[in-house]
Amino acid sequence: MKPSNKKSWRYRLHEIIYEADTPMGKLFDIVLLILILLSVLIVMLESVKSIDLKYHNLFYIIEWTITIFFTIEYIARIISVKKPKHYIFSFYGIIDFLSTIPLYLSFILVGSNYLLTVRALRLLRVFRILKITRYIGEGNKLKKALIESRPKIFIFIFAVLIVAIIAGTLMYLIEGEASGFENIPVSIYWCIVTLTTVGFGDIAPVTPAGRLLATLIMILGYGVIAVPTGIVSAQYVRKIPDDYVHVNTLSCRNCLEQKHRDDAEFCHKCGHNLNEEPSQIENT
Amino acid sequence: MKPSNKKSWRYRLHEIIYEADTPMGKLFDIVLLILILLSVLIVMLESVKSIDLKYHNLFYIIEWTITIFFTIEYIARIISVKKPKHYIFSFYGIIDFLSTIPLYLSFILVGSNYLLTVRALRLLRVFRILKITRYIGEGNKLKKALIESRPKIFIFIFAVLIVAIIAGTLMYLIEGEASGFENIPVSIYWCIVTLTTVGFGDIAPVTPAGRLLATLIMILGYGVIAVPTGIVSAQYVRKIPDDYVHVNTLSCRNCLEQKHRDDAEFCHKCGHNLNEEPSQIENT
Amino acid sequence: MKPSNKKSWRYRLHEIIYEADTPMGKLFDIVLLILILLSVLIVMLESVKSIDLKYHNLFYIIEWTITIFFTIEYIARIISVKKPKHYIFSFYGIIDFLSTIPLYLSFILVGSNYLLTVRALRLLRVFRILKITRYIGEGNKLKKALIESRPKIFIFIFAVLIVAIIAGTLMYLIEGEASGFENIPVSIYWCIVTLTTVGFGDIAPVTPAGRLLATLIMILGYGVIAVPTGIVSAQYVRKIPDDYVHVNTLSCRNCLEQKHRDDAEFCHKCGHNLNEEPSQIENT
Amino acid sequence: MKPSNKKSWRYRLHEIIYEADTPMGKLFDIVLLILILLSVLIVMLESVKSIDLKYHNLFYIIEWTITIFFTIEYIARIISVKKPKHYIFSFYGIIDFLSTIPLYLSFILVGSNYLLTVRALRLLRVFRILKITRYIGEGNKLKKALIESRPKIFIFIFAVLIVAIIAGTLMYLIEGEASGFENIPVSIYWCIVTLTTVGFGDIAPVTPAGRLLATLIMILGYGVIAVPTGIVSAQYVRKIPDDYVHVNTLSCRNCLEQKHRDDAEFCHKCGHNLNEEPSQIENT
Repeated sequence: MKPSNKKSWRYRLHEIIYEADTPMGKLFDIVLLILILLSVLIVMLESVKSIDLKYHNLFYIIEWTITIFFTIEYIARIISVKKPKHYIFSFYGIIDFLSTIPLYLSFILVGSNYLLTVRALRLLRVFRILKITRYIGEGNKLKKALIESRPKIFIFIFAVLIVAIIAGTLMYLIEGEASGFENIPVSIYWCIVTLTTVGFGDIAPVTPAGRLLATLIMILGYGVIAVPTGIVSAQYVRKIPDDYVHVNTLSCRNCLEQKHRDDAEFCHKCGHNLNEEPSQIENT
Repeated sequence: MKPSNKKSWRYRLHEIIYEADTPMGKLFDIVLLILILLSVLIVMLESVKSIDLKYHNLFYIIEWTITIFFTIEYIARIISVKKPKHYIFSFYGIIDFLSTIPLYLSFILVGSNYLLTVRALRLLRVFRILKITRYIGEGNKLKKALIESRPKIFIFIFAVLIVAIIAGTLMYLIEGEASGFENIPVSIYWCIVTLTTVGFGDIAPVTPAGRLLATLIMILGYGVIAVPTGIVSAQYVRKIPDDYVHVNTLSCRNCLEQKHRDDAEFCHKCGHNLNEEPSQIENT
Repeated sequence: MKPSNKKSWRYRLHEIIYEADTPMGKLFDIVLLILILLSVLIVMLESVKSIDLKYHNLFYIIEWTITIFFTIEYIARIISVKKPKHYIFSFYGIIDFLSTIPLYLSFILVGSNYLLTVRALRLLRVFRILKITRYIGEGNKLKKALIESRPKIFIFIFAVLIVAIIAGTLMYLIEGEASGFENIPVSIYWCIVTLTTVGFGDIAPVTPAGRLLATLIMILGYGVIAVPTGIVSAQYVRKIPDDYVHVNTLSCRNCLEQKHRDDAEFCHKCGHNLNEEPSQIENT
Repeated sequence: MKPSNKKSWRYRLHEIIYEADTPMGKLFDIVLLILILLSVLIVMLESVKSIDLKYHNLFYIIEWTITIFFTIEYIARIISVKKPKHYIFSFYGIIDFLSTIPLYLSFILVGSNYLLTVRALRLLRVFRILKITRYIGEGNKLKKALIESRPKIFIFIFAVLIVAIIAGTLMYLIEGEASGFENIPVSIYWCIVTLTTVGFGDIAPVTPAGRLLATLIMILGYGVIAVPTGIVSAQYVRKIPDDYVHVNTLSCRNCLEQKHRDDAEFCHKCGHNLNEEPSQIENT
């Protein structure tokens, strides 16, 4: 499909980095995937004090190795595309930059430990690799179903928020600060915790009136959970699988066979021309 | 569509307030929307002590400005409609009144802080604005699906309540006051918390028998959550296969056969003309 | 429909108690419904100490009045049916007996306070009344859908239990008594609390390994909740509404109209006899 | 169906152990089922200290009886199959071995109490027995629906994990150790507890920013729960409308048109005979 002779080094670099069809491209993707997952794992483990104390130096070395690899990759990506600006300000371009910069900044700035956690965003890069390898075609269907349901989901979340604000205000009035409903925002937070059936229990009504209102909110939430489910179900169910085609109700004048494809020109049973004029049949 | 010349000031006022087609009408709606959201935000923030201490005066000024605007709007709405009484006692008329009055009352009455929270009801006014702009046509579909499912949802909630009352009474007998199941209403409250899978954990069974019953309630709730979801899904999905046709409730005057196709002209059982006048039958 | 002259008193009694078509029958049902709900309300309120202390005597009088009414009703039911034994040992016969007896027993036995709570079972009698008045035809559909899904629901609950027992045993090994996983039954109880997404939080894992296993259980529970919902959804969706009939693919020989009812004998468009032999058409 | 005369003792043994059609085979299955359930019950009860203290000796005797029965059964299974190695390293072969060995090992090793809990795995053997008796044909449908939905469920769990890792990292930054978000893995654990709507409440955000993020996570989880449900619902419901037909992947040798009806004999586009031999084409 592609002209394979006389490739420039930029063309080859682009092929390795952005495509997964060649052996080198595949290898590059796999190495990148492992490094991303490894670096995210290190970000996690560094936050666990007991582990960090033991392996701090090891983590430090791995982290620098990965960062240097990412730096080279970032520069390579810039020089191998035709429009570097287009890449730099794209979604993945920004993610790549944010994935690379924290360690360098921690060198310059003091107390930038929180900055290092930004590296967890590297996980988002996984999506690009999986996209290239088209490992998950299923994801697109899911995405499409969600996008199609977007207006329904938007109005649903809007309704949930209105209910949470009004019910939250009422709970604040009924329960008050003694039960942990300190102010209206906290009350609204509790309402959403309850409506979504999460129910942490850090705040819970104690007065009979508060519990009665809580009961109503819970039953409402119980009934309401059906709505997004119904929406997505319907979205999924409506789809006709690919190995089915729509047929019309015409019948062949020769063999009376029905259910021809909408664009059929000949009968699939007897091979008769479906567009032939009736008069022609009579003449023969 | 409308006669646009020689409009009275009342007509123009009505157009601005009740409609969103003209530039002024749109502007009015947007200003109103912002003021409502701003005032609800202030009600929330006033309940947070630390914020209220800092910005109390600012909130006071904004609140008075908004209230005066709402007062003018309320009067304008009354004088611009043909039947003021019809508006005043309508759902939105009462909401508008309740949205405007609290601040004036707090001036007269002492200790009416709770009264001020009534202003959160202003949020309900958002629905009117969005309704006018028809921003959310999706909402009607959702509403229709819910209304059609109403009898099913009603019977479902009724069944949940019966289960909660009986299971709640049993839990009260088994667990008793020691575990927080103080009395039967509290037990029923706990049952609904559990059945709806919210599970606050402020009350939880501790005896083996209580935990066994709780297990049964939870599995029941788990299975039962499927019911409202199934109902709404079905409402959304419901598609009639192609080999089914809608029938009416007419019956043939000759053979009394029912369930004729909507467009049927002759009875499918006796071949009688369904459109024939009764008198004609008698004559024959 | 029924022979209405010369009714015996037993027939009249039967009509009042067991049927809801006559004015007296309706009145009886409504009075019974109110008394049942009132008595269940009293059982609840008696369990609330502060209320019981205040209104103990009032509750005592109402309870005795209701019990006497129920006693008379129970005797009337026995003497008005042809086969008293059949009634006495039926589901509702036993419920009626259990609803009436506790107060008498509390007179004889000492410390039978718990016995009095049995009166909450009176609530089950509500179903009979509602069944008679056919107030909720929707209930039957729901019931039917549930019964049809029974084998699926059974296998589902069975699978949930197996998962809970194995995961519960593992959690007991991992977490141990220190975190509240006292023994395997408690661990299994916790697993069901988690799988059903109730999550009380009275018991929660604290070790990293325990939390990892808990994560797996939760994601499993999250995926698994889809199963009963899908089952009931499918059960609901498959039903064709009553005002649709199945049609065949035959076409009328006279006007070529299609989609006739399966049992149609005449074309609904032109009234032509659909069963006429082709030869007959040619002859005319 | 089987040649019933001159059966060897090995054949008879195989029939009893592996099949359920003969009276002996059925009896064997039932006895095995009871012993498995009894032994799992004992594993559970042994973990409850108060019960274990009372009945320790009884449990000990029953356990040994069951273990000896299982040992004999294990040996019988090995000698009655043609390829013993095939059985020993099969899934059920390993389960059978693990079910039998712990008690013997506890005799040899000291402090192997934890080992004894492995006996809970015996429960998995229940599946084999139920499989043989084909008691639950429903299970296969469920299994099939789950397997078909596997790629969708996989991508869904993958998305949930990515969300949990990123949101967990953010919560760790916002809330910190003071609120129980000790490190990133714990934060991720909390995120999954929240996304799956379990909500233990052992860890809960306390800062306004943390609660705001928690609200977003909960609403996301609420919307997202719809996805697996929708997937499974669709799998169950999926019905192809009548005006669609299934097509195969053959292409016409004459015009290369694809998607022919399964029973098509002629190409619907060019009328070519689809069943014609390649050689015939060349000859013409």
